[in-house]
Amino acid sequence: MAARSNTRGEEGKRHDDVEQWGTFEAAFAGPADGNPFVDVTIAARFTLQNRTVNVPGFYDGGGVYRVRFMPDATGEWRYETASNAAALGGQTGTFNCVAPTDGNHGPVQVAHSFHFEHADSTPYFPFGTTCYAWAYLGDALEEETLRTLRAGPFNKVRMCVLPKPIDNAPLFAFPFVRHADGSNDLTQLNPAYFQHIEKRVQDLMATDIQADLILFHPYDSWGYKSMPADADDRYLRYVIARFSAYRNVWWSIANEYDLFPDKTPADWDRFFRIVQECDPSHHLCSIHYSKVLYDYSKSWVTHASLQNYAFDRAAEWRLEWNKPIIYDEIQYEGNIARRWGNLSAQEMTRRFWLSAVAGTYATHGETYVSAAGAPESANGGAMHGDSPARIGFLRKVLEESTSSGLTQYDGSYYLSAGAPGQLYLYFFDYHQPCEYEFPLPTDAKFSCEIIDPWEMTITPVAGAFSGNSKIQLPGKPYMAARFRKIV
Amino acid sequence: MAARSNTRGEEGKRHDDVEQWGTFEAAFAGPADGNPFVDVTIAARFTLQNRTVNVPGFYDGGGVYRVRFMPDATGEWRYETASNAAALGGQTGTFNCVAPTDGNHGPVQVAHSFHFEHADSTPYFPFGTTCYAWAYLGDALEEETLRTLRAGPFNKVRMCVLPKPIDNAPLFAFPFVRHADGSNDLTQLNPAYFQHIEKRVQDLMATDIQADLILFHPYDSWGYKSMPADADDRYLRYVIARFSAYRNVWWSIANEYDLFPDKTPADWDRFFRIVQECDPSHHLCSIHYSKVLYDYSKSWVTHASLQNYAFDRAAEWRLEWNKPIIYDEIQYEGNIARRWGNLSAQEMTRRFWLSAVAGTYATHGETYVSAAGAPESANGGAMHGDSPARIGFLRKVLEESTSSGLTQYDGSYYLSAGAPGQLYLYFFDYHQPCEYEFPLPTDAKFSCEIIDPWEMTITPVAGAFSGNSKIQLPGKPYMAARFRKIV
Repeated sequence: MAARSNTRGEEGKRHDDVEQWGTFEAAFAGPADGNPFVDVTIAARFTLQNRTVNVPGFYDGGGVYRVRFMPDATGEWRYETASNAAALGGQTGTFNCVAPTDGNHGPVQVAHSFHFEHADSTPYFPFGTTCYAWAYLGDALEEETLRTLRAGPFNKVRMCVLPKPIDNAPLFAFPFVRHADGSNDLTQLNPAYFQHIEKRVQDLMATDIQADLILFHPYDSWGYKSMPADADDRYLRYVIARFSAYRNVWWSIANEYDLFPDKTPADWDRFFRIVQECDPSHHLCSIHYSKVLYDYSKSWVTHASLQNYAFDRAAEWRLEWNKPIIYDEIQYEGNIARRWGNLSAQEMTRRFWLSAVAGTYATHGETYVSAAGAPESANGGAMHGDSPARIGFLRKVLEESTSSGLTQYDGSYYLSAGAPGQLYLYFFDYHQPCEYEFPLPTDAKFSCEIIDPWEMTITPVAGAFSGNSKIQLPGKPYMAARFRKIV
Repeated sequence: MAARSNTRGEEGKRHDDVEQWGTFEAAFAGPADGNPFVDVTIAARFTLQNRTVNVPGFYDGGGVYRVRFMPDATGEWRYETASNAAALGGQTGTFNCVAPTDGNHGPVQVAHSFHFEHADSTPYFPFGTTCYAWAYLGDALEEETLRTLRAGPFNKVRMCVLPKPIDNAPLFAFPFVRHADGSNDLTQLNPAYFQHIEKRVQDLMATDIQADLILFHPYDSWGYKSMPADADDRYLRYVIARFSAYRNVWWSIANEYDLFPDKTPADWDRFFRIVQECDPSHHLCSIHYSKVLYDYSKSWVTHASLQNYAFDRAAEWRLEWNKPIIYDEIQYEGNIARRWGNLSAQEMTRRFWLSAVAGTYATHGETYVSAAGAPESANGGAMHGDSPARIGFLRKVLEESTSSGLTQYDGSYYLSAGAPGQLYLYFFDYHQPCEYEFPLPTDAKFSCEIIDPWEMTITPVAGAFSGNSKIQLPGKPYMAARFRKIV
């Protein structure tokens, strides 16, 4: 049974070349009878010199089994399959892992304790948005979402793998076999469903956007939020085997885990352990709550994924968790009736700045009432708000200021963050001082710029500043000031 | 020695008539030698039928002693003095207390547990401002302060009795005898100082503004913040004897009591007990802190005088203290460099609305940099900000909505307060819903108005509403909505 290596989108290289952090895939013909999802196991051991990585495979329907792997080092990799099905075991092959192409910086991982960067050390600061249902809204809306994301400032999308009901619209497919009477066969996954989701993950990868995959959510009406443990685990292993070879994947074990009617804390911990066990690429992994914080100090959590806007607690939480913090739900820009869905663009912009000078990150979402009058719920499609442009401006400010993220200056008279001795970024929030004496270091000179986060202007102040430096300010609220060491 | 009754500003009545809640004053000639402040005691027992009120008097310099009394009931009052000086004891007299003139509603007192009203039951909702030093800024600035207050929306002024240094400007007088070498004789008060302050308290009374007299403050450079206990107590008894007959007086034991270098909690408690002992009129009495809350549950505190803007804790604090809450320092509108002094007018307006729908009250202050470039510190003079007009608008909204104050609807989906079954006042803060289904009672009909706190507009919504009522809203942040029962 011949393996076929699949080096999607990497034209011009040898057919069996895979770029570093690209996706190697091998497909094998195997049993199509019985229930392959339950009956058949498949995995492969990938080796590079003396290093071995165990990679679970999955059944993709029609008697086809696949093993996908994201090589993280260049060189000649060999693999050998193992299976409880004779036809699938003992298959071997090789591929050559070559240097990544432009724009491929590898997966995002934790860096500098409280921040992130790509595997090749390219800086990455999460400026995410929320499109919970975008991957199964139908092609027209999905393409509109992609156009919106390509044109926008966001580099991460929170999205649900399992379907989220949208106004009772029919789904293109279900993730599990579903009988005519509406009952689920949770022992049989539906490859067509996941093939489509995975296509959308690839679309995001092609536009350099991280897919923060929400593995469980409590909003469904089809029973997936209350599956028995064996079905949960089977689904989870399947998704990991399918998706973990995409470098833009993050795992979000759940959205609002504390709203599930039947799950216990032990269930969530088990899911984390399964991710750790099955994901050979160690993608970022967290969990999102509604009201009850998960214990983000646990070793299997890579970063905190908060639902609140208590930016003033960031310092305390960093001490407690020693991890990056993403305020993944800080309410949404919009005008729907629900309290969480009607922030002004100004308030959303303000919250992003507050998160930045807290040395943390925030995630956007939009919930305007649609033209047809229905309330939207951050599911995807076009965006109409005024905050994304400002969030993009902040992203630009951050990216041109630092390569390692902002360190919060806890105890600063006004909120500020930066890199000691190098960078001081102040945000004045509702304060509107007409001047302020900035306590700059005395042993270096700094340039000064006044930043208007809403008007998106950066106005240099003439001069070079050192030590206590009194600067005239616009006397408007929500201003910022940036001091950069003059090299 | 003949007593002389003094019925200031009450022309057209018999010379010895005093209106209810007016000020009766009797003056007596007594010892001018030695140190009358220490050596001589004077008090009077005022009786109305079988009721007796003990009223301390005070030495006003030049051998003149005075006893002042604010009668709170009409009828013929008699008095008899007592003193350790023969010339001052045993003096008797009478006066007739008549009905109050228009505009005299008596002192403000606690009403409806968490609110205030005048002694004649006229509603009073505190909308205060802060003019710490206005009573000793010099006549020009003092008159400007008065003009400002007369034209403005405020009905309470927080002001310091003891001097507060202003840019090293000379004081018109000191409260204690001060020697050429700068040392104080704390055993000798200076009547001229207090005569002037008291004139300013009367000026406020004439324009219907409560004088929230701050008895101690930690800002002075003359030593008054660190007097020995006997000097503290003598000063306190003196001020109470002089000022308590003015119906617009409130006692604020201290501003930022926790910033005094030498005082202990027992000192502050003792001051409260002295006020209780010496003030025959039981004026409102509280204490203001910087960071450490005083225990406002203590029996001698009439209301909480907070320095914070934690409006979301009001419900909890009401349960704890069972008293009205005034957020007496919520930072100031202005543009000075200090963090507490540079709120935008919008943010100040927002905080007043948040306090209102929390069933509490707030106090304004203004700290713009002066035309001459010096930072002002809410000391008095003209006001330049844009929040006072909006605060006046809120006062009007409140006064036309209720006679007993707003009860917070704790647990309301959006912030709201009112009178159950009668009045529902919503404030949406940063939320900008385009519509909301208001859960009105089903057993009555309500009018609806959309209120724009900044634009100061009240827009009626056509119709009468009952039960769950979906109302279209402007989709702007910081809006309010009012529902009043249709009679």
